[in-house]
Amino acid sequence: MGLDDILLNKISSIVGQRGLLTGEDVTARSCDPFTHLPPRSRAIIRPNSTGEVASVMALCHGANQRIVFHGGCTGVAGGAIAGVNDIVLSLERMNRVVDIDPVGMTMLVEAGATLEAVQNAAASHGLLYPIDLGSKGSATIGGTIATNAGGNRVIRWGMTRQNVSGLEAVLADGTVVTQLNRFLKNNTGYDLKQFFIGSEGTLGVVTNAVLKLVPAPSTQNVAFASVPSFEALLELLVLARRMPQLSAFEVMWQDYYALVAEHDATRRPLAPELPFYVLVEAMGYDEEGDERRFTLFLEEAFERGLIADALPAQSGKQAADLWRVREASDILVREMGPFISFDVSVDVRRAEDFVNSVRTALHEHFALVRSIAFGHLGDSNIHIGVHIGPDTLRHAFEIEDCVYGVVSQFGGALTAEHGVGTAKRHFLSNHISAQSLATMGLIRHALDPNRRLNPEVLFPSKA
Amino acid sequence: MGLDDILLNKISSIVGQRGLLTGEDVTARSCDPFTHLPPRSRAIIRPNSTGEVASVMALCHGANQRIVFHGGCTGVAGGAIAGVNDIVLSLERMNRVVDIDPVGMTMLVEAGATLEAVQNAAASHGLLYPIDLGSKGSATIGGTIATNAGGNRVIRWGMTRQNVSGLEAVLADGTVVTQLNRFLKNNTGYDLKQFFIGSEGTLGVVTNAVLKLVPAPSTQNVAFASVPSFEALLELLVLARRMPQLSAFEVMWQDYYALVAEHDATRRPLAPELPFYVLVEAMGYDEEGDERRFTLFLEEAFERGLIADALPAQSGKQAADLWRVREASDILVREMGPFISFDVSVDVRRAEDFVNSVRTALHEHFALVRSIAFGHLGDSNIHIGVHIGPDTLRHAFEIEDCVYGVVSQFGGALTAEHGVGTAKRHFLSNHISAQSLATMGLIRHALDPNRRLNPEVLFPSKA
Repeated sequence: MGLDDILLNKISSIVGQRGLLTGEDVTARSCDPFTHLPPRSRAIIRPNSTGEVASVMALCHGANQRIVFHGGCTGVAGGAIAGVNDIVLSLERMNRVVDIDPVGMTMLVEAGATLEAVQNAAASHGLLYPIDLGSKGSATIGGTIATNAGGNRVIRWGMTRQNVSGLEAVLADGTVVTQLNRFLKNNTGYDLKQFFIGSEGTLGVVTNAVLKLVPAPSTQNVAFASVPSFEALLELLVLARRMPQLSAFEVMWQDYYALVAEHDATRRPLAPELPFYVLVEAMGYDEEGDERRFTLFLEEAFERGLIADALPAQSGKQAADLWRVREASDILVREMGPFISFDVSVDVRRAEDFVNSVRTALHEHFALVRSIAFGHLGDSNIHIGVHIGPDTLRHAFEIEDCVYGVVSQFGGALTAEHGVGTAKRHFLSNHISAQSLATMGLIRHALDPNRRLNPEVLFPSKA
Repeated sequence: MGLDDILLNKISSIVGQRGLLTGEDVTARSCDPFTHLPPRSRAIIRPNSTGEVASVMALCHGANQRIVFHGGCTGVAGGAIAGVNDIVLSLERMNRVVDIDPVGMTMLVEAGATLEAVQNAAASHGLLYPIDLGSKGSATIGGTIATNAGGNRVIRWGMTRQNVSGLEAVLADGTVVTQLNRFLKNNTGYDLKQFFIGSEGTLGVVTNAVLKLVPAPSTQNVAFASVPSFEALLELLVLARRMPQLSAFEVMWQDYYALVAEHDATRRPLAPELPFYVLVEAMGYDEEGDERRFTLFLEEAFERGLIADALPAQSGKQAADLWRVREASDILVREMGPFISFDVSVDVRRAEDFVNSVRTALHEHFALVRSIAFGHLGDSNIHIGVHIGPDTLRHAFEIEDCVYGVVSQFGGALTAEHGVGTAKRHFLSNHISAQSLATMGLIRHALDPNRRLNPEVLFPSKA
């Protein structure tokens, strides 16, 4: 089923020379930020308009050709991995910011625009697109929509789903579905954008999107605090939520913080002696009032014994330095690699118990275990990294099986924000009901009956 | 295709005597808050559990029996109207609040619980379920989910869609799909709840839901202000959005406010002389800071000439009185009835132009025209009431055709928050693309191929 010459020539006549990559232009690329696996496909198609995407999709429909979609290829669930039987359709040339409405606070943008380009365009109008990821320089709007990307500020502004107002998508047969809604309220029939958001490219490919913007905050208050117990941590979260300005509540277990602090003296704001560390951030529009409110929060937390010690940032530089403690994947990779990473949701009230149970289960299965835990606790999202020695990657399945077993026991979610991709699809049926999976299959079948779009993504092989 | 005795007996054996209404128990009820039209169905089925709903749905599947779902029957788009060939399935006995998680801030509730019961249950834990409607005493959680209900505080907390974390639904064939997710982040496969929210009962019936709660605000600042021009109104909106506490920005055109003020001296906070009146509300958790912030907002608005006069509420009683100006449907019905009401979204920047164009178009078509405009301008949602004399209702289609024509010209939305129902389905194809409508049809067909669920709702007859 590899791409044949006839189809390739037809596609080439639609997208032109700039729209077609072959040979080394394909093999020099990466589908995956961890393994740097190149596409094994014969060609990468780069249309320059929705019309070109639709024509290419219609041709592939007629030829029963499988397609894998590429945005920025920064996803960590293997959703962009392309095999010899696939062609790759990349949105990279469709990267224009079409327009911005500063009163309605929306932006119309092509799906290939990077998150960073969108953020910059919003900022030039005094606005903010709230989704923020470490990979924003490469991650595209289309990719973040397909995977319903999260990030650090979900507690305030929600996931990508909450920040998309409308979209245009092309279906498997080339049909263009345009719902470029700009209204906060619109109940005119099914909200089709919801079907495409988070479906990981299995129902169609997003070509344009209307994004919701918010006024760019003018204040940022950040503090790094040590927390004496899990009970205190939960109370601290409840207290922090009483600030409408709250924009992040990031928790680091001691194992995570000690590792970071040990290997970088510039990322050691407090002594790593207590069980939990928290980065709290509030962003608002009121210089005087917001600082007062944040200080009151810290004072009350201290008086009630919810934090043992706290370092409030005195400058934007210091705030950025505190964020570097939380975003220390460079240290994790260097000091703990290779490791298997997890991205799960659990009942916040049982988060400590959950992490302890994961550790216990790992120690029962493996002789050497090193693990660290951190995450967006305000969103019930915990990340865990697991290392069991130099051959960790060879034992990936056993490690995953062990951890996901505990996730199941706790009624947790297989993936909070990274998505299923190709990496987790074999575990999917353990984490949702057979009826839910069958219903997903019915919808998939309605829009892509031959499973040609991202064919190895999300669904287990036999679903 | 009326309900036959054999099927009725089988259903009766599932739901028992209390679960089956016939005769006057059916005809004494109303499907519609305006017309008080009774169901024309032979029976109303009232299951008491998801299992009973599933069994009834499976029986109807086997008998090819049409079903119309009833929540509180408070919707104004005719979604609950039931004909002689339908049976009615009411969720009214499934009205339990199952549990509340005060840390994760979620509530598990059966779909037949009223909005008011949910609000009260949340309040007893110091929490708030933010969706609020005038009909909250009757409107049910299931109905608000099926219609993606809006209301007054969407600008802060979003539509129903943004306030539902998980749900359980029963499909046309009786399959139970359970995704009672409680996590803010969960990308484990398609987010099936999004398919059911706002699909107006055409894909399945919601039986249970997990709702998102927020801390109950402890402060409420409300002001009623007069605005000298549309340009000032837009600037005022931009300014108000810089308060993260902003919970309502309700606009009344002079025609609306003058009518209310003329007929009720207790609803006349300011002289009705300027083109626009606004009710602004902010709700937060900081007694001192929130009042200071709200006062600063009013002062800046006054200094910049964005408001001519303002009356800030000095008490909860006064705040409620100001809200009564905005929620004066009693006066509208009495003084302007009969009227046709519209619920549209338009580009906020063109809202004045839009309302003027609607008036002009109406005056071109009808000899006598009286209209009023108001709405949730911060959400781009405008409500218009139109009266053309005592036989207004007989000319409903002409009036609708006239107004929706202007909506189309302005690229507006047919319905912002009320839904399509049976009332607007004939206009649907003028407001969304043929491709969008066909895609909705594919999904409908995948889950309800014989169109037995709410068969006259949302889709045009031939779609």
